[in-house]
Amino acid sequence: MAEAKKQSLIQRQWPWLSGYNAGTFSDDLVAAIIVTVLLVPQCLAYALLAGLPPQVGIYASVFPLLAYAAFGSSRYMSVGPTAVISLMTAAAIAALPEETRIVSAAILAVLSGVMLLVMGLLKSGFIMNFISRSVVSAYITGAALLIMISQMKHIFGTKADGTTAFTLIRNLMNGLSDTNTVTLIVGVLSILFFWLSRKYLAYGLFKVGMKSKRARLAARLAPIVAIGASIAASYAFDLSNQYGVRVVGNIPSGLPLLTMPHMDMKTLQLLWLPALVLALVAFVDSMSTAQTLAARSRSHVDPDRELLGLGAANVIAGLSAGYPVNGSMSRSVVNFTAGAKTQISGLMLAALMTLSALFLTPVLQYLPLSTLAALIIVACFSLFDFKALWKTLKYSRGDGITAIATFFAVLIFGVQWGVLVGVILAMTFHIKSTLRPNMAIVGRFPGTEHYRDAARFNVETNEYVKTLRIDESLYYANARYLEGKIGRLVEESPKMRDLILMCAAVNRIDASALASLETINSRLKSAGVTLHFSELHSHVKDRLGRSELIRQLTGKIFFTQHEAMEALEPEPDWSQFSDHVDIH
Amino acid sequence: MAEAKKQSLIQRQWPWLSGYNAGTFSDDLVAAIIVTVLLVPQCLAYALLAGLPPQVGIYASVFPLLAYAAFGSSRYMSVGPTAVISLMTAAAIAALPEETRIVSAAILAVLSGVMLLVMGLLKSGFIMNFISRSVVSAYITGAALLIMISQMKHIFGTKADGTTAFTLIRNLMNGLSDTNTVTLIVGVLSILFFWLSRKYLAYGLFKVGMKSKRARLAARLAPIVAIGASIAASYAFDLSNQYGVRVVGNIPSGLPLLTMPHMDMKTLQLLWLPALVLALVAFVDSMSTAQTLAARSRSHVDPDRELLGLGAANVIAGLSAGYPVNGSMSRSVVNFTAGAKTQISGLMLAALMTLSALFLTPVLQYLPLSTLAALIIVACFSLFDFKALWKTLKYSRGDGITAIATFFAVLIFGVQWGVLVGVILAMTFHIKSTLRPNMAIVGRFPGTEHYRDAARFNVETNEYVKTLRIDESLYYANARYLEGKIGRLVEESPKMRDLILMCAAVNRIDASALASLETINSRLKSAGVTLHFSELHSHVKDRLGRSELIRQLTGKIFFTQHEAMEALEPEPDWSQFSDHVDIH
Repeated sequence: MAEAKKQSLIQRQWPWLSGYNAGTFSDDLVAAIIVTVLLVPQCLAYALLAGLPPQVGIYASVFPLLAYAAFGSSRYMSVGPTAVISLMTAAAIAALPEETRIVSAAILAVLSGVMLLVMGLLKSGFIMNFISRSVVSAYITGAALLIMISQMKHIFGTKADGTTAFTLIRNLMNGLSDTNTVTLIVGVLSILFFWLSRKYLAYGLFKVGMKSKRARLAARLAPIVAIGASIAASYAFDLSNQYGVRVVGNIPSGLPLLTMPHMDMKTLQLLWLPALVLALVAFVDSMSTAQTLAARSRSHVDPDRELLGLGAANVIAGLSAGYPVNGSMSRSVVNFTAGAKTQISGLMLAALMTLSALFLTPVLQYLPLSTLAALIIVACFSLFDFKALWKTLKYSRGDGITAIATFFAVLIFGVQWGVLVGVILAMTFHIKSTLRPNMAIVGRFPGTEHYRDAARFNVETNEYVKTLRIDESLYYANARYLEGKIGRLVEESPKMRDLILMCAAVNRIDASALASLETINSRLKSAGVTLHFSELHSHVKDRLGRSELIRQLTGKIFFTQHEAMEALEPEPDWSQFSDHVDIH
Repeated sequence: MAEAKKQSLIQRQWPWLSGYNAGTFSDDLVAAIIVTVLLVPQCLAYALLAGLPPQVGIYASVFPLLAYAAFGSSRYMSVGPTAVISLMTAAAIAALPEETRIVSAAILAVLSGVMLLVMGLLKSGFIMNFISRSVVSAYITGAALLIMISQMKHIFGTKADGTTAFTLIRNLMNGLSDTNTVTLIVGVLSILFFWLSRKYLAYGLFKVGMKSKRARLAARLAPIVAIGASIAASYAFDLSNQYGVRVVGNIPSGLPLLTMPHMDMKTLQLLWLPALVLALVAFVDSMSTAQTLAARSRSHVDPDRELLGLGAANVIAGLSAGYPVNGSMSRSVVNFTAGAKTQISGLMLAALMTLSALFLTPVLQYLPLSTLAALIIVACFSLFDFKALWKTLKYSRGDGITAIATFFAVLIFGVQWGVLVGVILAMTFHIKSTLRPNMAIVGRFPGTEHYRDAARFNVETNEYVKTLRIDESLYYANARYLEGKIGRLVEESPKMRDLILMCAAVNRIDASALASLETINSRLKSAGVTLHFSELHSHVKDRLGRSELIRQLTGKIFFTQHEAMEALEPEPDWSQFSDHVDIH
């Protein structure tokens, strides 16, 4: 029995385990080898981008993979260092003293990881809904541009620190006179190679007879050729010592033990907000990668399990002297395309990265930083999405302004603030769109029980009992508008003695709207008008029952609009028709 | 003609000018004298609260009155220094060097004023709708508590700076051993007098035969007795020199010239955000005062003109070496109760304050600071509204949490952050409430053209053509939910070949929801299902016309739901009924 239960838990957590065989094993292994080739230079490059020593990138590429395999839900996702998260890390630790940055990056990973785990345990995967697509897309475009600018110093071989576009460009300009020509040549050649191979190689290989899928995979791996070449050149001509070209340098071989980084209150106070923003961005970004992969493979991702997987990966990244990680779109796609079948491929990748950490470091130390920077810069090309920005602006001014503001906020205030600016503006525009909800005086279609807008349809209304239909939930942002609307209605309707609010479309009445309804009730009372409600949703009615409004209400709550009219409508004053109508 | 036009402009701006006569003049004058008695000690007290020299409070009580009379719309509003705005000023300038604080406070007023003017010119009075009643009430309660705590140092005669409850209380505890006993006695006696006279004096005077309204007014003015007494005691016993009681001290007599305070980029960078928050709070607070007074006098306030009035008042406050001002609830109510009829009363108040600045300063210099602190503390009693907090929490958990978080944010992070925390939480809870909009599969009421929820009513549905009615606007926060909902529907409906989205309640489709609809359209296409829309609002349809969805859409847009069903519904397959139904 207990055995069966255990079986079913494993079944639920890792459904792909059943039916694992030699075929799937070899598929996974091939994919892992290919991703390793991609990941080794990338993890060094992203550590550089984060302003951390190269080994930190390697550490962040081993243990997090194991944690994600255990807790995450996507089969193909490859977690590890990524461009945007590395830049966020750089921004978060930039203000801290040089000597504490490595520990702070690890603390940042632990904090973000714990936040993600807590969100996952509280099943709050829904929070990703607060970050709209257009904000994410504008944010990534802005971050990519900022990353490119931040890497230019390595291409020129100069120094130019900063976390905003303004300071980066100013420092870059100031340092231009110190440009190292050999570094610049290596950097520009690398950019050209990476860019041309990414853009044309797949097509070229396909033309000379390679299968389309295989050609695309080969093109993805082409960077390793340039990296090999630049390592060889660096070693052969001793670029570092002879020409002052900055290289990766000595990397400690092996992996660190798992240890908790030392935290003090002051660091925590500085890092909690960046950690929160980082956790949100990592989650939203990883989810969109996971969903894309799930759609291709007709499988399913669970946001709450993604939170757990990503949270565990980050906690482990921090404990293993790494820095924050998330799901990498580019590596995950290669993993999927290369034929990975299960997360076993992630475990194999971790093993291969361990071997790299043990045996490749003597070779990698000669790699020029400008080649790594070129790798980052070309990777950023594919993150730009100005077309989406333009499309959004054309469709909706509010959404477009939000996206553009997000883009510029990233550049001007730094990568941490872009998402916050975007989320708050998106909320603001949405709420602004509901400030003046549609409200209509309704009347009865003659001879029926249907009530429609009196301004658009030829319906029966009367001077004494009026009905206002409200077409949106009532809450703080439109509560005062309702007060004003009813105020004007009272002014214009001297004969009115009953007002019915028809609430079929009101899904919610919040505390502010309740206060407004209380105000309206007492103002109407002093004007001699009785206030009624009709067609209230039952959950709205239940909640109103807990308020004082229900005790003070001058009128009644009617189940249907027709019931209300039947009860309140005055007897027709036949006398006024007596000249025209012959009553039988 | 030009004369007539000018006439009508004046008429529109100051409608009360026509019919101004000796009677209204004397009414206004009496009110102005009474408010002056109240304002002289208050402006000194609030300057103390803001951490500024006493004369700054006087300066802020003269010119802003003129500006408001010229541009504002409320007849009874008394603008000048107030408790909450003084505390916000204190928080904004606390981080700046001591010697630049006076200039910074003036800059803050100019900045806030310009922001308010710009908002007024852009007719953005609607922004007050973003700040819910429960947030305002919780904010004021928190600020009142923080103000009380901040004034305790003057009661004890110690030093205890800080902008959050935590630092204030810690510094207060540390300084307790330095308590000045005479200061403490003066402070406690003042608190008792102010509190008892406020609570019982009106009732007492009414009991001994005074008219109710007059008794209430007299009680309002009682503080002047205690202030006179403490000035007399301070002078007679030389409390300042003999007992170390801190007093107001030398106040420069007269008024300053209007000058632009010197601004540099660094100060502007530090002050723009506090100025924005201050402008919003000042506006929302003043508007609620103005609306209360307007309701009592059955007149009307225009939010956009209030913005202009308050903006002009603040700009002038800054130019006349003052600090930020807003409409004072307590003084405005006294002004109204004392019989003020027009804003001429405000002009008289300005004249009387000028006289005070010229002739009263030699007397006021003896006033002990602890008496002023007592005045502030007792004023805060009436700002507490814990009952509203409790009522909100009981009615709605989300609103209650927002209010409580606002309250604690004020205490813990300082007065600047409370409103921001409240606004953002209120938006978040509202948007959270729309994350999972109501959606229902609908069918036709037999023999009619009406379509209702198939889960609740006995209606006709079929397996091939399904209709999903969406009961809320589609936007970024619920777009992904719609994707999931339709995904499940497709899974559960193997025979479905047409899906109609019935959008009668959809007031808006934003760019993110549009992207989701595009995704849904292409996913349905690959599943062999055609997507249609019915009952789209015309403005939603117009906007969709600008998108790519309309070109990619597999199905059609139908005007009514019935039209859609007529066009799409399959011919009934009578054969399957042939065993059971006898067809004639």
